[in-house]
Amino acid sequence: MADGAEKQSMHRVVIVGGGFGGLYAAKELGRAPVQVTLIDKRNFHLFQPLLYQVATGTLSPADISSPLRGILSNHKNTQVLLDEVVDIDPSQQKVMLRGSELEYDTLIVATGVSHHYFGNDHWKPTAPGLKTVEDALEMRRRIFMAFEAAEKETDPNKRKAWLTFVIVGGGPTGVELAGAIAELAYKTLKQDFRTINTTEAQILLLEGMDRILPPYPPELSQKAAESLSKLGVTIRTKTLVTNIENNVVTAKQGEAVEEIPAQTILWAAGVKASAMGKVLEQRTGATLDRVGRVIVEPNLSIAGHPNIYVIGDLAHYAHSDKTPLPGVAPVAIQQGQYVARLIRERLNGQSLPAFQYADAGSLAVIGQNKAVANLGHLKLSGPLAWFIWIFAHIYYLIEFDNKLIVMLQWGWNYFTRNRGARLITGESSLVQVNVDSEGYSVPSDKSPVEASR
Amino acid sequence: MADGAEKQSMHRVVIVGGGFGGLYAAKELGRAPVQVTLIDKRNFHLFQPLLYQVATGTLSPADISSPLRGILSNHKNTQVLLDEVVDIDPSQQKVMLRGSELEYDTLIVATGVSHHYFGNDHWKPTAPGLKTVEDALEMRRRIFMAFEAAEKETDPNKRKAWLTFVIVGGGPTGVELAGAIAELAYKTLKQDFRTINTTEAQILLLEGMDRILPPYPPELSQKAAESLSKLGVTIRTKTLVTNIENNVVTAKQGEAVEEIPAQTILWAAGVKASAMGKVLEQRTGATLDRVGRVIVEPNLSIAGHPNIYVIGDLAHYAHSDKTPLPGVAPVAIQQGQYVARLIRERLNGQSLPAFQYADAGSLAVIGQNKAVANLGHLKLSGPLAWFIWIFAHIYYLIEFDNKLIVMLQWGWNYFTRNRGARLITGESSLVQVNVDSEGYSVPSDKSPVEASR
Repeated sequence: MADGAEKQSMHRVVIVGGGFGGLYAAKELGRAPVQVTLIDKRNFHLFQPLLYQVATGTLSPADISSPLRGILSNHKNTQVLLDEVVDIDPSQQKVMLRGSELEYDTLIVATGVSHHYFGNDHWKPTAPGLKTVEDALEMRRRIFMAFEAAEKETDPNKRKAWLTFVIVGGGPTGVELAGAIAELAYKTLKQDFRTINTTEAQILLLEGMDRILPPYPPELSQKAAESLSKLGVTIRTKTLVTNIENNVVTAKQGEAVEEIPAQTILWAAGVKASAMGKVLEQRTGATLDRVGRVIVEPNLSIAGHPNIYVIGDLAHYAHSDKTPLPGVAPVAIQQGQYVARLIRERLNGQSLPAFQYADAGSLAVIGQNKAVANLGHLKLSGPLAWFIWIFAHIYYLIEFDNKLIVMLQWGWNYFTRNRGARLITGESSLVQVNVDSEGYSVPSDKSPVEASR
Repeated sequence: MADGAEKQSMHRVVIVGGGFGGLYAAKELGRAPVQVTLIDKRNFHLFQPLLYQVATGTLSPADISSPLRGILSNHKNTQVLLDEVVDIDPSQQKVMLRGSELEYDTLIVATGVSHHYFGNDHWKPTAPGLKTVEDALEMRRRIFMAFEAAEKETDPNKRKAWLTFVIVGGGPTGVELAGAIAELAYKTLKQDFRTINTTEAQILLLEGMDRILPPYPPELSQKAAESLSKLGVTIRTKTLVTNIENNVVTAKQGEAVEEIPAQTILWAAGVKASAMGKVLEQRTGATLDRVGRVIVEPNLSIAGHPNIYVIGDLAHYAHSDKTPLPGVAPVAIQQGQYVARLIRERLNGQSLPAFQYADAGSLAVIGQNKAVANLGHLKLSGPLAWFIWIFAHIYYLIEFDNKLIVMLQWGWNYFTRNRGARLITGESSLVQVNVDSEGYSVPSDKSPVEASR
């Protein structure tokens, strides 16, 4: 770098992770007299709240993703690195990347969470979760492939299993997936098949607690359950999944045990901290919670390490309330902005009071015209909640062209019930579904098709 | 099927392949008194002329794809099957699918072509071609990953190889790819990197003939070459690729042999017939041409098999001209419509004169505001040709919502030079580029990242 000498003397901030927390910290530091390096394994920021719409064929991955370099290109103090942090050394103030290392003065860790199978990681291939673009495309492939396989299946029991969709977990993601799949089966795809009747599809939403959307007020859970039932979703509460094997879900409700043959099983049940949690525990002595999140100080730093911050889903912050803050985008955004401001204040010898989350409410969508909104004193459901949901999501889409495209897609879908992105893609989409003699096999991933591609 | 008895007595048309030829045949037969089955390995029709815009990060796959079921859902006489034809039996009038078979009265084969490496199939992993959505996403991944790797590379020679893009083949696809990559490097990405200068990228277009766009009139080839040069593309004509190994392209121009180290090598040089060509040769005695295409009769049937038609890229049709018709969408569309009309006429005991291609001209785009159009007597280049190209392509996009989205994306890109779909995705995008000691390795596809996803 030509201006290396000047930069050497600048305060170096390294941000690990380009999700909501890391990105908003970087944006807030864009005009500060610091040198910023944002490290992410992916070259784009993903608007995760809309990922289920990729999984169910409404939006394309690019509609809800923005290249990190593009977002930050005007911030000349900021470098984006497509790389991965594999370790840190707090005494040397260094992060170790793959094959290189990088010094920092302040470190912000925002690497988020991944799926949690509660000790049953072997369920993962059969019941994929939804965190990455690849996850969403895999879900999309399975959902649409299931209808295709059912269309060709002649055995009624096997056909029923292809038309059974089990969603494990009744939180916002599970509710959104169940609602979207119900709309697909009962509305969008209704005219598209000749031998199956897609309205015979069964969509099951399983939740361990006594109601869906447990973090919401009970009356909104109730409204959501009513809306989902009207859409055709079967809800089972107080129901625990005890096994997933050979495409059969074993569900336990009190003493009753049920075996549900289902070719499509989607996991929306739990999260665990990303691997950086363990790294921080080992290198800084940070305390982790039950799912591996880092318990942070009131200013989001790690105890004893005032220049290392953990924000977003990876942080366990329980200072403003007894329960930790939820793993949602607004918390991560506010934490990213707070830490960026705190860094600027500190460079001026100042400080900031403890982080305070300003809760604007939470929203979950159930289907066309149907959503629930918990805005503190105001609890909404139905079309108004749905419109608030739409505008809140469009507002937070990071780039203007994404806002336009998503608005247009939604507007179009709203009036036509069409869904443009119903593609079955990926290497394994080139092959046929092989229904074996047991009836519950998954699509094979070996293809002799090569020659005729 | 409830109305099976009625359908049994109907004339059964089986169409293999849902590209331009197969789809337009199916559409034309939608109201005819026949029973239509359209078989494709994919669940969507792909608008292949715009695939290079997916490969270079302008459009998303869903923008140029439409689910076949959706397009044909109103044609109640038509069934779509996601399956593959592995063999045919003309004496029994049957096609063999994977695990089942299907009888036909008339068979239309429209399975197109794939890449041709002229006996060097081992070049394929290093120099991928562009036929499928997966091909395009792989090209996109390689192009954007190359800039990322260059940004991290400290060795100037290795960095140069990461910033060298070789496109083999100067036909329309090669020209379009070269122009789009030049615009990326010299315009779109200019502000996005900190250690590299993307305008130092080298884009090489290699063509074996004495000019690019050989099927076009020489003056348009000349115009195209001038426009590409202005964009920053280096064109080498009369240049043959004799080897591709360890990410070095060996190019021979007359006696001069050059070795070009390049991490990104894209193949746009040749096509060969899909596997159905060989199947037809074996089962019907059809004659194939040099690249395996089926030589068809004036009415597009196979000699001696009046109820088997071959249309689109797979057909070698040389009755209206000495040279066979080119493998372009308008030929396939007109052939699909012709065969559909011929089937209807035959059911009424009538016939049709030989197929005649109505050539409306050909278009190739070079970059923003730059294209060449050969409209018979009228030869255009520059902004007007570019606008004709835009409108011709939007007009032929099969569904209205795709038209809207693509128009919006293009309009937005036109005024902002932004590109929304610059995502590096796919399993192998989760890992880092490992530059080995030789300097020319490709990204590894094994990732220890799993835990922190």
